[in-house]
Amino acid sequence: VKRLSAACVAVGSELLGRTKLDRNSLEITAALAEYGIEVVEKVTVGDHPERLTDAVRRLVRAHDVVVLTGGLGPTADDLTRPAVAAALGVDLVRDAALVETIARRYRSFGREVPGIAPVMADVIPGAEVFANTVGAAPGLAVDHQGCLVVLLPGVPAEMRSMLHGELRQLLNRRFGAARPVGERTLLVGGVPESDIEERVAHLYERFPPGAVSILASAGLVRLVLRAGPEAGDPTSVLDAMSAAFRSVLGDDFVGEDLDGLEHAVIAEARTLGRTVASAESCTGGLVGAMLTAVPGASDIYLGGVISYANEVKRDVLGVPEDLLVTHGAVSEPVARAMANGVRGVLGADWGLGITGVAGPGGGTADKPVGTVCYAVAGADGTTIRKAVFPGDRDAIRRWSAHSALDLLRRRMSGLALP
Amino acid sequence: VKRLSAACVAVGSELLGRTKLDRNSLEITAALAEYGIEVVEKVTVGDHPERLTDAVRRLVRAHDVVVLTGGLGPTADDLTRPAVAAALGVDLVRDAALVETIARRYRSFGREVPGIAPVMADVIPGAEVFANTVGAAPGLAVDHQGCLVVLLPGVPAEMRSMLHGELRQLLNRRFGAARPVGERTLLVGGVPESDIEERVAHLYERFPPGAVSILASAGLVRLVLRAGPEAGDPTSVLDAMSAAFRSVLGDDFVGEDLDGLEHAVIAEARTLGRTVASAESCTGGLVGAMLTAVPGASDIYLGGVISYANEVKRDVLGVPEDLLVTHGAVSEPVARAMANGVRGVLGADWGLGITGVAGPGGGTADKPVGTVCYAVAGADGTTIRKAVFPGDRDAIRRWSAHSALDLLRRRMSGLALP
Repeated sequence: VKRLSAACVAVGSELLGRTKLDRNSLEITAALAEYGIEVVEKVTVGDHPERLTDAVRRLVRAHDVVVLTGGLGPTADDLTRPAVAAALGVDLVRDAALVETIARRYRSFGREVPGIAPVMADVIPGAEVFANTVGAAPGLAVDHQGCLVVLLPGVPAEMRSMLHGELRQLLNRRFGAARPVGERTLLVGGVPESDIEERVAHLYERFPPGAVSILASAGLVRLVLRAGPEAGDPTSVLDAMSAAFRSVLGDDFVGEDLDGLEHAVIAEARTLGRTVASAESCTGGLVGAMLTAVPGASDIYLGGVISYANEVKRDVLGVPEDLLVTHGAVSEPVARAMANGVRGVLGADWGLGITGVAGPGGGTADKPVGTVCYAVAGADGTTIRKAVFPGDRDAIRRWSAHSALDLLRRRMSGLALP
Repeated sequence: VKRLSAACVAVGSELLGRTKLDRNSLEITAALAEYGIEVVEKVTVGDHPERLTDAVRRLVRAHDVVVLTGGLGPTADDLTRPAVAAALGVDLVRDAALVETIARRYRSFGREVPGIAPVMADVIPGAEVFANTVGAAPGLAVDHQGCLVVLLPGVPAEMRSMLHGELRQLLNRRFGAARPVGERTLLVGGVPESDIEERVAHLYERFPPGAVSILASAGLVRLVLRAGPEAGDPTSVLDAMSAAFRSVLGDDFVGEDLDGLEHAVIAEARTLGRTVASAESCTGGLVGAMLTAVPGASDIYLGGVISYANEVKRDVLGVPEDLLVTHGAVSEPVARAMANGVRGVLGADWGLGITGVAGPGGGTADKPVGTVCYAVAGADGTTIRKAVFPGDRDAIRRWSAHSALDLLRRRMSGLALP
């Protein structure tokens, strides 16, 4: 099989500032790899017609596939359609039927059709048009001198739906069905990265360089395993690699190829037929937002109480006033009372309580910023943990949410507790 | 002052996979901007000598400054030095003194000097050598036909120390002391991007191309205003630009240089001495998580109830059973009762209620996926809105949170309601 090369082009001046990066190329890279197409170059250019035209002209000559994202909207700084047309040496043609399709999209949102909308119906002659089922701007795909040039929206949800919808269909027709790709991610919970690293270090030597990488983020570790096409059937190679790591990880192993710990918690609770409720102070709703990001979570997650103020802990969750006075809001007894309180008030099988000092203010010598108490209450008792998490407010909140969800996962499944 | 252009080149096959992005360019972009040097293009290439040489040859011709990161180590896949030398048409020369400096670095970590270490002392003739005070590989900076070519390590800590150390000193000598940079972001709430665009379109013409860009994300619009050093004092230029846009935006203008709508809500409530509580169904805690991400939110945000299950709406928030039966959980009367309920239960000045169909399941002909009802309850009455938001589950939830927070902002401040 000849290896095909591709380039990703992210368009938008906002991607050349001090904060925002092109992330669309990650998902595009993963999808193209399933067709044996390797992204070997990524380019980000601003809303600048000549630079964009130059880049496209160059990349179309050099690669088999060029995927652009962004700049397909109707506004003055959306330049991708005309810039690509210029690079290919063709003129855009307005597609009257597409003008009407776009207008219907706006009306389906209950919105007026803006006067500038029809510009999104300007197509490159011969291009296949991808319908936008999320937003308004259609995508385009056109062949030019042996290169497949694809234009996708920059809004991630719109890009994603087109990438996995009509673009995949086109790639299936063109390059055959997608083939399993040799990558698998093991999610590991409740242990610091350096511990994991030490425990799995001896396994690294068994596999080729670059075959294993470790990514850590606020209490969650991801081990990424890769099997190149040269290694034989990727599935069996990855099965063997995964088994080797799982035998070392034991109960710290959460699952394979999961979007997050919350997916494991919802799936496990569903298997067991159990319901969950949360009482959150320092995380302020983050655990609820994570759990309810999982489609279908409503069978499992009944809801929660964000007990940011002490009065809410007392009046809504029934945390006794004397616990708050004697031990303070950030304490193991209060975390326990929150978990039990929300379990009782909402009538859930499992209750989760989190209270802590997320900072930047509020730390004391006794309870510095990062101090978090969390508890999991079930029919057979309550487990409480206290930790001092590192990082800024955001990191401490994510550490708290991950640690509490991991404790819930272990309690639900009867696993070893950290 | 002539505006100088720059390109960033990130080198490394690991930056072309499915997980890892070049982030070094963000910090380099910010530092260069202080010298009036604008990064107008970013490129990521793998550990591939010809592709890297081609990219450098092209970028050196097109820009005043080219900064490469990565590929400076001693291993076989570190190709940046020879690839850049080839692009510039020169031969690398081994610097004997630098060989010794690098050996001392290894010894200072208590490590043996690897046999391959001296390759890091191969320098481009005429280059300034940047000492690596964190790791081992030195950086390089060389002038070539009017372009300053800079080679920095890819490890962020090493890159950073060189960027803010010897590279800044070089830039200070070359381009004068760093100057404040002219960028300001206007946050706009509660209106679709295309509406904003139409209203401000006539202002674009007043300012240079690229001076204004518009970013939209799930119900929030950001207008980014930029003033180059050539425009005079950036602060007064931006003040004038901002005033022009604000006069058009009216009450849709939320604030300048805010991290998000939640910061405006917390600040406004603090000014007015008011407290806030939330009752969330489809957003599942997202509004709470957003508000509590703001440091010091605890004075303002008392907490909330995540009433995902109907029983929680009824038993904790006091939503009457007959409203749930007659109108359904996703309805204007239920949103109203949730907002009023949480206001009463938590004793807050303002209550916020959100209920909707975030999908992917649960939609009906009557209430398709995206249907969301939200309400803001205060002492002087309750405002309710119903909308059908576009996008996937995540987008619908963010639209819901932004729209509800914007309605709260307007109610608190007595602004026009959308």
